[in-house]
Order: sequence, then C-alpha cells, then structure tokens
Amino acid sequence: MPVAGNVAIVGSAATVFGVHHELGYLDLLEDASRRAIEDAGLQNQDVEAAWLSTAVTDVVALEGESGSPITERLDFAPRPVTRVSAYCASGMEAVRNAAISIAAGEYEVVLAVGAEKMRDVTPRGSLVARTGNMTHPTLTKGRTGPGFFALLASRYLDTFNRTTDDLSAVAVKNHEHATRNPIAQYNEPVTAEQVRSSAMIADPLRVLDCTPTTDGAAAVVLASVEWAKKSGRPYAVLSGVGFSVMDGYYSGLYNPENDFLGFRATREASKVAYAQAGIHTPREQLDLVECHDCFTITEILNYEDLGLCGRGEGWKLLLDGATTIGGDIPVNLSGGLQSCGHPIGATGVRVVKEVADQMIGRAGGRQVAGAKHGVAHTLGGPGILSCVMVISAAE
Amino acid sequence: MPVAGNVAIVGSAATVFGVHHELGYLDLLEDASRRAIEDAGLQNQDVEAAWLSTAVTDVVALEGESGSPITERLDFAPRPVTRVSAYCASGMEAVRNAAISIAAGEYEVVLAVGAEKMRDVTPRGSLVARTGNMTHPTLTKGRTGPGFFALLASRYLDTFNRTTDDLSAVAVKNHEHATRNPIAQYNEPVTAEQVRSSAMIADPLRVLDCTPTTDGAAAVVLASVEWAKKSGRPYAVLSGVGFSVMDGYYSGLYNPENDFLGFRATREASKVAYAQAGIHTPREQLDLVECHDCFTITEILNYEDLGLCGRGEGWKLLLDGATTIGGDIPVNLSGGLQSCGHPIGATGVRVVKEVADQMIGRAGGRQVAGAKHGVAHTLGGPGILSCVMVISAAE
Repeated sequence: MPVAGNVAIVGSAATVFGVHHELGYLDLLEDASRRAIEDAGLQNQDVEAAWLSTAVTDVVALEGESGSPITERLDFAPRPVTRVSAYCASGMEAVRNAAISIAAGEYEVVLAVGAEKMRDVTPRGSLVARTGNMTHPTLTKGRTGPGFFALLASRYLDTFNRTTDDLSAVAVKNHEHATRNPIAQYNEPVTAEQVRSSAMIADPLRVLDCTPTTDGAAAVVLASVEWAKKSGRPYAVLSGVGFSVMDGYYSGLYNPENDFLGFRATREASKVAYAQAGIHTPREQLDLVECHDCFTITEILNYEDLGLCGRGEGWKLLLDGATTIGGDIPVNLSGGLQSCGHPIGATGVRVVKEVADQMIGRAGGRQVAGAKHGVAHTLGGPGILSCVMVISAAE
Repeated sequence: MPVAGNVAIVGSAATVFGVHHELGYLDLLEDASRRAIEDAGLQNQDVEAAWLSTAVTDVVALEGESGSPITERLDFAPRPVTRVSAYCASGMEAVRNAAISIAAGEYEVVLAVGAEKMRDVTPRGSLVARTGNMTHPTLTKGRTGPGFFALLASRYLDTFNRTTDDLSAVAVKNHEHATRNPIAQYNEPVTAEQVRSSAMIADPLRVLDCTPTTDGAAAVVLASVEWAKKSGRPYAVLSGVGFSVMDGYYSGLYNPENDFLGFRATREASKVAYAQAGIHTPREQLDLVECHDCFTITEILNYEDLGLCGRGEGWKLLLDGATTIGGDIPVNLSGGLQSCGHPIGATGVRVVKEVADQMIGRAGGRQVAGAKHGVAHTLGGPGILSCVMVISAAE
C-alpha cells in the first residue's frame, strides 16, 4: 500500500534543544527514542526496526556512520537500524524511509530518530572549517550557509523592493511563538529593534536572522493507520510525502533555471505531497505549517515555494499577520529553527513531531484549535533537496 | 507485501574495480547506474527513486552526504534519492531500503547504487588517519581493520589448532576464482607460497590476507516480481533479507557474549533471511555464496556464521574444496574482496549483482550450472552489523 494515508505517527518525543555539554550524542538519542516509544504505549522490544538521521558525524566520530548508536543504547539488538543523511533534510529522510517500511508491511512498528551534537566542536571542527578541510579553503570565504542565503536575501529585497524590516518580522514572529514551546533553545521574545541591531553576519543577515548552533534529538514511532486505530491511542496520519533532489551539491549554483528567488526542490516536493493528500488550495486547506527557517529570508521564500501565496508575495503574507499565531495559516508555531535551533539530523524529526502534536491536539499554548492538515518541511544543502509531508488528524 | 519473494533484481552493472585515478566518484557512479538501467531495458526517466550507498565521504567532500550525486549525473531531478551508510555493509543497506520501497508499491522501478573512491586519498585521509583524527590518536595504534581481524585470526588458529596455511588457502582459492572475473582488481592466480611470503601487515595477516584498497561502483535496478515477469526479461528474486545490528561501534569489543570466533550479527541476519527463504540446510540448499572476505580469516568465520558448517569447522570446509569452484558450495566465485577489492559503499551492491548474475545464468566462466539459491553477505564495522540476502532464480 502507498505511504500516503496509510502510515500513522503513534508516538513522539524530543529533548530540549539547546547547549548540552552535559549530555553526549548517545544520551540525546536515547532520551528522545525511549520517550517516543513510551509515548506510543510500547516498550523497546515492541519496535521492530529503526532509521537514524545524523547529518554530520564529526563529533560522534565513526559511531554515527551507521545505525549502531541506537542498538547500543536501546537494547535493540539484533534488529535492523538504517542510517540516512540528506543535509538539513536528514531527519525527514529517516521518517520517510521508516514510513515506507510500514507501508510495505515489512514491520508493524518502527522508530525514526534524529540526533546531532553541534556545540561540542572546536572552531576547527565547525561546518565552515569542515567545508574548507574537505573541499577547498577558498570555499569557506563567503560560500558559507549565511553567505549563500544572504545573496538570496539581497536579491529578494532588491527584486521586490523590500527592506530588512521584512526579514526582522520573521524573527520577531518566531521568537514570539517560541515563548509557548518549552523545548525551544530560546524562548524569550525579541523586538524588531533587537534584530536590527544584532551583529552583522553576512549582509543583510544579522545574528537574529540566523538559526543558532544547537544540540538535540527528536524521535517518532510509526505504525500503520490500521494498527493505530486498534491501539485506541491518539495518532496523526501521514497523508502526503514528497522528497525531491534537484541538483548536485555545487551544480545547483550554476543551474541556469535557478533564479535564486526560491527553491525548486520545495516546489517539486510539495507538488507530490499535495497531490497525495488532496491539497489543491494550500492556504485554505492547511491549518498550519512548520517550515525550514534556517534564515529569516528562507521562511519568506518557503511561503511562496509551498504555494501559500504567489511568487514575490511572501513578505505580504508575513506582514498581514496570516502566518502569526491566530492568523489563518500560522507558520512555525514551534518557534522554528530561529528559536529551536537546528541540530541538523534532529530537525526534520522535530518538525514532524510538531505537526503531529498539533493534529493530535496536544500542542499546548500554541495549539491551533481543530487543526486537520499541517505541513512539515525541510530544505537541505544549498537548497538542492527538500522534503514536504502533509500530516493530518485521524478521521 | 513483504520484500521476500516479491522483489526482483531486473538489471545490474559494475565498473571495473581497481585504481581509477582517471575517473572521479561521479564518473564511477554514473557509469554503473546508467549501465544497470540499460541492462533492465529502461531509460533513466523510467526509474522513480534511488538509494545511494557511500560509506566514507572524505574524498567526495560534502557531495557524498546526500543522494544528490545521482541527480547530478543521471538527469534524475526531481526524483527522490536517499543516501545510506552502514560501514562495509552500506551497499546492501541501499539495496534493502530500495527493495522495501518496491514491496510497499510506493514505486515500480528503483535504483540502488554504491560507489567509493578510496585511492585518491593522501595518507592523511586514509581510514587509519581518519580514525585518529575523529577519535583518539591511540586508536590508530593497532586497532585498525587488519589489527582487529588479526586478533580473531590468532584466536581461531590457536583454538582449533590450525596454521596460517589455512588462511593462505582462502587467498589462493579466491584469486583463482578471480581469473574468471573481468571486473576484479586482481585477476592473476597467487600461490600459497606467495601469500606466505608477502609482507606482514598485522601478525598473522599478510598483505595477501587483506582486501586491497580500491575504487569502484556497482548498481542494481529493482522492481516487483510481477513487473519483472511482465517485462519478459531475465531477473532474479530477493527471497530472504536479514539485516542485524548487534552493538555500538566500540561496545561490541567489550560485549561479554562476544567470543571473537565469529560474528553474531551474521548469525542473526542469516537466521532472518533463511527463515524467509525457506533455507533450513544451507549447505544443501544453497548453490553458492558471496561473503565478506575482507581478510582471509573472515571468510572462514563466515562459513560458520552462515551455517555452512559447524563452529570450528570452517577450515575443514575450505580444505575439503567444498567452497572452491566445482565444489558443492562454492564461495566467492567473483574472487571476493580479496581479488575485487573493497570500495566500501560499492561492495554490497556488487555482491548482490554477482549472486543475481549467477541466478540469471550469466556469470560467464564462473557460472554454477542450474543455480537456484545463493547468498550475498556483507559484514560491517568491527563485526557489529551484517546483511544477508538469499537471492533465487526466477521460477
């Protein structure tokens, strides 16, 4: 049977996202996994297989290059564990592959977990240093994450005659949302003036336009909808899943079809996910979206790529308040990557958990009443790949 | 539907395994993939999704950390590509996950490809150097691949009162087999005396007890058995798939249940695969085996772990000639890792291709007449994980 409509999220958990010098990679992984399994009303032995997402294995050394960390900490032997990586979309790849195994009927109950330690690296181990060590030193001179997205921001502001105040509005909104999310790395509100006066990282992006560097883990337990129904416990349904890879890591930068005003990977992935889920008018049919706000500009571009508005109109959706809590299509109620941080392998699993929690009605102070359909989205690499999942309330 | 019995291998290809300073990672990947797709009578556009195995991304830098290399070279956009890694079993993880997607009916035709460049690294980029850089320098002093397997070899020879001549017999056999395999890195025979007098690497393992360092890629195309039947083209069937992860990367070394005379991961994985495929008496029912002979001792241990003989009897099976071409259970007719080399991400896909070719009856000079069931096996990390697939002839 296809994944769409047939696979349920029956348990989930996440660690607090933040600076965890006191906890190792295995500790984070174990905590999120055990609590997700408990949340499904199960024990470790009930879970038949697992998928692990870790994007950057430097901190966990050779251990993170297979699924064995799960085995080590969850008494999981001799079960299969698969490790996937897809840059910033890694977590959703773990969920997607785990979901496919449920759709196959190969397993009844599986775990998808993502974890990343990003605060235990020295400057020589940072993502920027790694880019230089593994590629060419000149690539670290500007072609960093902030540097790349700064170019998109400049182009967007110029093309649509906007100012950096629009970018600030994303940060202000998401930090306000995060005051309602106990696992967010930062849950104090910030003002537009604070964003505006924060340190410049890559013009026009300032510190408060960027996701922070973070440790964390998140896990979900998946089963068939049939199994979930029988369990009598709350669950959410994966009603559409699209994953799209558009270019090679560098080739996307030279793709003449790339206008650098959005990401085709997201447009293609959402096309697939929406078709499966019967979403024709996203802004009307969706109750909320969790999308990849690695930088403030990214969220505005995502509005457009996810079809919440036309191209060049994302800033308007934002300024109109439509994407703020209480608006007709709230985006990043969790606080997003801006406030939760972005432990790469964990993020995709966290956003799936966040939307599933909304569909189950247990999102606490940020709950959208009666939410029926939400989108979980991550964008990876230099925008070359993207995963979009439509997650729906149980019928 | 379950994977076992329902998923077919409908196309395959591999590059020559060897030293390819003239070809990059993307070149190898593209060559194997395009030819596997052609072998299935298809075009790139007919393939709906792909799984990529690359274990060590240092040479290909950041590009290898997602599935995007396939997209770049196969005009594959906007299709999904998943990257998996599981140490030396990475290739079979790509095949396994791809097979699950076919069983789910999520896709009709998918690609699984593995590639690795291992000859373009400087000494500072070698696996040994990496272990030191990513873990602790003392871990490179002896606890290398050869060092670890040398301890198992010593223990085995001591426990069962054998000599290094038994180890040499594995190398002699596999190099003899490789004379019939045009893609092997080395396809000249070697004598026992040559093995005995080759340079010592980690006592008792000499150069000719070890797999060489190699570049290469291999690819298979998977579809449902139903689809394969309709195609009217030759195919083989995945009749059993077991993947087992037993310990963490280091914790296996301290597991009190580990007797270092074999690998429980292989025993557990074969138990699952054999049960699915209805294999009760492996030596009688199997026509051939491709197993993970990263070192000569590993092949002898595999005989026992795969149930071809009792524990402590692997050397006898070997010396009796049962595992040599013409014997009743020939092992590593391809020449194995000893002769083909071991481009890590590619190996698991290559062994699946090798067994499938035997089941289709196109293994050339090394064909086992009328072969009905074969095993493809890889062992990963310090023996902590293993994949076993039973591959059968179409009925």
